Amino acid sequence: MTTTHPVDAPSNCPGTDSENAGKTDACVGCPNQSLCASGKGTQVDPDLELISSRLSHIRHVILILSGKGGVGKSTFATQLAFALASREYFVGLLDVDICGPSIPYMCGVEGEEVHQSVTGWQPVFVEENLSVMSIAFMLPSREDAVIWRGARKNGVIKQFLKDVDWGSHLDFLIIDSPPGTSDEHITLVQCLKYCHVDGAIIVTTPQEVSLLDVRKEVHFCRQASISILGVVENMSGYVCPCCGNCTEIFAPTTGGAQKMCQYFEIPFLGKVPLDSEITLAGEKGISLFKETNESSQGLKHLQNIVTHLLQLLKIATE
Amino acid sequence: MTTTHPVDAPSNCPGTDSENAGKTDACVGCPNQSLCASGKGTQVDPDLELISSRLSHIRHVILILSGKGGVGKSTFATQLAFALASREYFVGLLDVDICGPSIPYMCGVEGEEVHQSVTGWQPVFVEENLSVMSIAFMLPSREDAVIWRGARKNGVIKQFLKDVDWGSHLDFLIIDSPPGTSDEHITLVQCLKYCHVDGAIIVTTPQEVSLLDVRKEVHFCRQASISILGVVENMSGYVCPCCGNCTEIFAPTTGGAQKMCQYFEIPFLGKVPLDSEITLAGEKGISLFKETNESSQGLKHLQNIVTHLLQLLKIATE
Repeated sequence: MTTTHPVDAPSNCPGTDSENAGKTDACVGCPNQSLCASGKGTQVDPDLELISSRLSHIRHVILILSGKGGVGKSTFATQLAFALASREYFVGLLDVDICGPSIPYMCGVEGEEVHQSVTGWQPVFVEENLSVMSIAFMLPSREDAVIWRGARKNGVIKQFLKDVDWGSHLDFLIIDSPPGTSDEHITLVQCLKYCHVDGAIIVTTPQEVSLLDVRKEVHFCRQASISILGVVENMSGYVCPCCGNCTEIFAPTTGGAQKMCQYFEIPFLGKVPLDSEITLAGEKGISLFKETNESSQGLKHLQNIVTHLLQLLKIATE
Repeated sequence: MTTTHPVDAPSNCPGTDSENAGKTDACVGCPNQSLCASGKGTQVDPDLELISSRLSHIRHVILILSGKGGVGKSTFATQLAFALASREYFVGLLDVDICGPSIPYMCGVEGEEVHQSVTGWQPVFVEENLSVMSIAFMLPSREDAVIWRGARKNGVIKQFLKDVDWGSHLDFLIIDSPPGTSDEHITLVQCLKYCHVDGAIIVTTPQEVSLLDVRKEVHFCRQASISILGVVENMSGYVCPCCGNCTEIFAPTTGGAQKMCQYFEIPFLGKVPLDSEITLAGEKGISLFKETNESSQGLKHLQNIVTHLLQLLKIATE
């Protein structure tokens, strides 16, 4: 018999299905202790079945993670969604960053409202085949802070997974998470326990201080049995628009993401340079993939990454 | 009689000292509900008195906040600590980013250990007059992820404030927090309730997507009655080392931090350009203020900000 451990269990967790569940020294302080001690540690939360049924018709679920904040995770998630939509897939983009939701701004749909129908919460449509859900749609003002402890954030995330009606057909659900390995991530992993998740893409910059946190994210994925689809190295060098000289602003002193991927034996999806066209697209809330300007270095690198990703997922690319 | 509201209270909170505390509709789901309902909502947590006594001899306590991650908050906190230490102040630097601690790396003291003595936890000394405390010193390996929900993180933060022995004299305690407005921030504010806190410095980049989160942070500070010492605009333009041309990589499409400060009537402390010498100092874990290279644009801007800050705190500067 295999024992199961919650992803946030203490290191000596006896397992939720052990006779000693909730009763050992290691259980003290564990958030699951009372559930385990009452013998309900292995009971399936009925919400998890609802989530599994809600997401069952979605072909691919991809998590976007980063250890450190500000590495361009939401920008990447947004442009990945736009890229897939431009290739005529049906795409949903779910923003589970509760305290710092930026996806609606980056998709140019800030200020829109979410409507409730008999089939669930209706996401906001950015394009005909691209819809978005975020806590930002529910705040009275864009300046309002969500000063919530973990438990309240977790409730909203669960509700997003359970109640959003993504429509009858969705090829990709892209879930953009906040940086770190805390409440939002534990909740996501626990809620998606009975769903098919293709895996996670981890976004980083080339600096060691960012890679340091990526290693933590790799360990988190392994502990949570989430496969890693690959790592994207963002802000990888800056080409001066004036003289064309490329500088490594965020210097990869320890070999960058590619070397780290070799060490961990995980796929390296590619590099995206610092490109003012990418940041501007985010600021304007538009798709890079509709622009006629084909000269953008960032666009080319992003296209390659999307093609690489589709190959990994074994989806034929043009 | 004034009523008091916890910083994470629901919008219609009747106040912890109200007769209806814990009993109204608004109280449902509030983390303080059971405490309020039992009439203990206004009781002082004895730990808060211990924290207040522990920090009572520290002349200035400054929080470093940012709405968005990756804006250079920890780099700024580290270099601010180095700058103050170079001006011969006694400085403590507390890293309350539990899931992504980077201060030890940036101070060049990664891998050091924290020792316990009869007077409390001994911080790690970076320089004779600069000491650091972080969860990173307590992890078995640098790659270990701290997969903790809020409650466990809060316990550690409280212990840091209560148990670290900063020595008999400290001019500045700089507290570097993770991005956002969630558990760590609520805990910090609640734990420091009876301490003298000078205020918060908010770090941002010039982009609207970062300013969006700064506005949330301003609201958080106001709700928590933390005064805002000022805003620092980081990564403000990049000077190409080859041709000297300055580009706004993170374009301030809505006027940047300075305009936002005017709107909120809060001090603007200054800009720091993207400077590879600053990122390299962080990567190498060294002080910018010991380098002989006086040509660094970043260094000059940082010095001006420190001088500005000391004036705000009414401390004579050379």
